[in-house]
Amino acid sequence: MKAITLAEYGGPENMAWEEVPDPAAGPGEVVIDVVASAVNRADLLQVQGNYPVPPGASQILGLECSGRIAGLGEGVEGWAVGDEVCALLAGGGYAQKVAVPAVQVLPLPENVSLEDAGGLPEVACTVWSNVFQEGALAEGETFLVQGGSSGIGTHAIQVAKAFGARVAATAGQADRLQTCRDLGADIAIDYHDDVPEQLKKATDGHGADVILDNMGAKGLSANLSSLAKDGRLMIIGMQGGVKAELNIGALLAKRGHISAMGLRGRPVDGPHSKAEVVAGVREHVWPLFAQKAVRPIVFERFSMADAADAHRRLDEGGVVGKLLLVNPDA
Amino acid sequence: MKAITLAEYGGPENMAWEEVPDPAAGPGEVVIDVVASAVNRADLLQVQGNYPVPPGASQILGLECSGRIAGLGEGVEGWAVGDEVCALLAGGGYAQKVAVPAVQVLPLPENVSLEDAGGLPEVACTVWSNVFQEGALAEGETFLVQGGSSGIGTHAIQVAKAFGARVAATAGQADRLQTCRDLGADIAIDYHDDVPEQLKKATDGHGADVILDNMGAKGLSANLSSLAKDGRLMIIGMQGGVKAELNIGALLAKRGHISAMGLRGRPVDGPHSKAEVVAGVREHVWPLFAQKAVRPIVFERFSMADAADAHRRLDEGGVVGKLLLVNPDA
Repeated sequence: MKAITLAEYGGPENMAWEEVPDPAAGPGEVVIDVVASAVNRADLLQVQGNYPVPPGASQILGLECSGRIAGLGEGVEGWAVGDEVCALLAGGGYAQKVAVPAVQVLPLPENVSLEDAGGLPEVACTVWSNVFQEGALAEGETFLVQGGSSGIGTHAIQVAKAFGARVAATAGQADRLQTCRDLGADIAIDYHDDVPEQLKKATDGHGADVILDNMGAKGLSANLSSLAKDGRLMIIGMQGGVKAELNIGALLAKRGHISAMGLRGRPVDGPHSKAEVVAGVREHVWPLFAQKAVRPIVFERFSMADAADAHRRLDEGGVVGKLLLVNPDA
Repeated sequence: MKAITLAEYGGPENMAWEEVPDPAAGPGEVVIDVVASAVNRADLLQVQGNYPVPPGASQILGLECSGRIAGLGEGVEGWAVGDEVCALLAGGGYAQKVAVPAVQVLPLPENVSLEDAGGLPEVACTVWSNVFQEGALAEGETFLVQGGSSGIGTHAIQVAKAFGARVAATAGQADRLQTCRDLGADIAIDYHDDVPEQLKKATDGHGADVILDNMGAKGLSANLSSLAKDGRLMIIGMQGGVKAELNIGALLAKRGHISAMGLRGRPVDGPHSKAEVVAGVREHVWPLFAQKAVRPIVFERFSMADAADAHRRLDEGGVVGKLLLVNPDA
């Protein structure tokens, strides 16, 4: 098969579409003939050498894919060769075939093309695990998503809205703020403004019960200010740095919670596992596609052979939704 | 009635045992004839002027008490005049009578004297809400309590052990480390040592699934080091300061959680309320007293008239368990 290989750490110029050995399905795994994968920020970090691949995971880039099941490993039940699926991967998605534990595989949601599904597992699993499983966002509560026009943001707005939350989203330009509103955001705030102030104004001083944040250090203080009493700050990215001063007194005064959780390092099975997250997505999020309450937001499609261009495009900024990488031979 | 009054903010010398008006039971409240109250660090901070009394709460010190119900407000069910009880208070415990919402009242646990029960509500509600309701400590998980010989610590060790956790506790002297072990701690670590290192050594590198911390800023970095994957750091005090650098990358690598929650500012009813915590304690913790798996740890008893001396005693350090304040006329 062909896959994107990485000659050395650095920039996208080190990525090449080359022949590599096919993966094999181990016990409990399936092999998928990949139709599409998608670009995540973790892939950009991995190219730079700033995202160590978890032990046992494929060295190939790509944290999600869609495609057809091509082979079943020992003990796999519930899936058959030819099934159209998508999957959450620990790596290996930028390739024509990938092996993945069967518990990380999802059926195609209704009303979604096989190609578009390649950009769903990461956003769906990230939002479900953070905002709902851990953050326990409830109907009628206020949800703030930072970077509302990102891949994660565009999905989070729709799902939170579908579950009956009041949704606030930040973005940096008028057209992206409008996109947030079009997707269902009740409140859209320019992140160049004083976000806690604007949020409080728009919520009668309440603030956000759950915040989904991709900035890390740079956003910490403002996020604590935006948090409502008993609020939960879920940090999933550190685009604004790693280290920040935490005012524990401010956190205590709000009975606040800060969580920072990734997907990639989770165990396959058991407590806090990928299997748990994927099962939650299938049960709670997939029906929203059938109801047309949620749809995939694809910004641009690239041939997987041109994955380097897609990386450059994400790095430029201004991407609304996901960048798909389509297997040119699928 | 008599109560401890505070002439001005400062030291214990401003505390006096004086005649004040009796409290009255509002709707949903009971009045308790107080037998005993107990000293909490928040009381010391309040005397200093560093703990603002929540709106609507009594200006009198004292966050817990035991006694007999003396009167019922409108709409109170399930309690009768003369019932022996203890209660979680938003204030008003350093007094001969106190009015409190009925949902914050607990029956006397089995095998506990009415006097000793005066020092139970704060530790029981703090440990239950943090370690179990929010921290979700599970059987077989590892629990680390900082300050294992404190009032909170001595209770937390017993309850966590009773629920089947592996318990680690820190203390600063050999005799207090022995107390932790006597109460059930599997691992006792001198906090002058490298606690994360010692904890990892004692747990085959696992660390703590839940940490209960009273130090705040000073302990933050070491607590993150001690945390296991998917671990939960529960901060209930800031004896080591308010502001500290948070390494969000380290938190993310562990899929870690930090919560800082007090009891006093919680609403009486509804989500995240005192009623919810008190109901949890009654259902899950009180039976442990009946089973003799948990007992109150009282270090010293003072006449409530001498509350200033008890404050000085707690401030000196080395108190193992609780300091009770006994109503001299009860």
